[in-house]
Amino acid sequence: MRKYSHEEIQESKPSVGNVSEMDRSPFFALLDNVRSMHNVGAIFRTSDAVLLKKLYLCGITAAPPRKEISKTALGADELVPFEYFDDAVEAVKALKAEGVRVVAVELAKGAAVYSDFKWDGPVCYVFGHEVEGISDEVMEEVDDAVYVPMLGRANSLNVATCFGVVMLDALRKIS
Amino acid sequence: MRKYSHEEIQESKPSVGNVSEMDRSPFFALLDNVRSMHNVGAIFRTSDAVLLKKLYLCGITAAPPRKEISKTALGADELVPFEYFDDAVEAVKALKAEGVRVVAVELAKGAAVYSDFKWDGPVCYVFGHEVEGISDEVMEEVDDAVYVPMLGRANSLNVATCFGVVMLDALRKIS
Repeated sequence: MRKYSHEEIQESKPSVGNVSEMDRSPFFALLDNVRSMHNVGAIFRTSDAVLLKKLYLCGITAAPPRKEISKTALGADELVPFEYFDDAVEAVKALKAEGVRVVAVELAKGAAVYSDFKWDGPVCYVFGHEVEGISDEVMEEVDDAVYVPMLGRANSLNVATCFGVVMLDALRKIS
Repeated sequence: MRKYSHEEIQESKPSVGNVSEMDRSPFFALLDNVRSMHNVGAIFRTSDAVLLKKLYLCGITAAPPRKEISKTALGADELVPFEYFDDAVEAVKALKAEGVRVVAVELAKGAAVYSDFKWDGPVCYVFGHEVEGISDEVMEEVDDAVYVPMLGRANSLNVATCFGVVMLDALRKIS
């Protein structure tokens, strides 16, 4: 089979100006204390791919402009709408007040397999710290939880990988 | 909602000995010149999560044991079966000779959306270099190609993120 050339791919892409005017997907994501800026950058890149409505960056999660984020975001940090909150609980409460269903991606009692989880209306997926996961305070506020099956010994995926799995599944659901 | 504690999660996990005896999933993956050992480590971690049958590491892709891989593999580099080939084309030919369908994950002419792609029997997904993608020599040998939709400006996902998206979709298909 033949790969498309760089030129062919570029021709198929919306311009920077057009991306900023496109309808964005009806889902949000929130990062609760994600420590690694490389992970945050990769998450911006995935957020551009799915045209995420908005990315909420909370607590110790770094926000653009930061060169460590740009290194893995490859420009997506200048295209994806984002907002920073010191306190993730405040962000969750603001989303819920606007009618957004808030869903933790976490190994939690009663959590559904991510791919089985159904939603309509606006939804915000929450991702937590690389080691500690989502804080207990945020878990108290969320409406639902979903998890990614882990069949082997590992307890979790890398957070940027997990973000990709859940966001592309969300995109598949609305396609 | 309540997160499971570390102890509850550990109790639900197979032991290291049990993992090595479990039936593994009927799909393989091949890394063609993946440059970053952090990406290779994250890919091992995801491979453990889906109980990948075997991971083929080719060309400049580093193979365990390497401390840079262990840093992101978190032990999965000691659990997931792998094999190193200097030449990815040789690995692809060996797989095809054993009846494995080889599928490039690449923006290629005629490629299917990854989630629409159907298979039965053994399959091996191929992932390429972070910038260059899969080599032309390997593309000439593959049976099919699939791609992950990229709605914004970015041409591709981070390779470890892309690996997670495609592998968890493969797991969903056999579940």
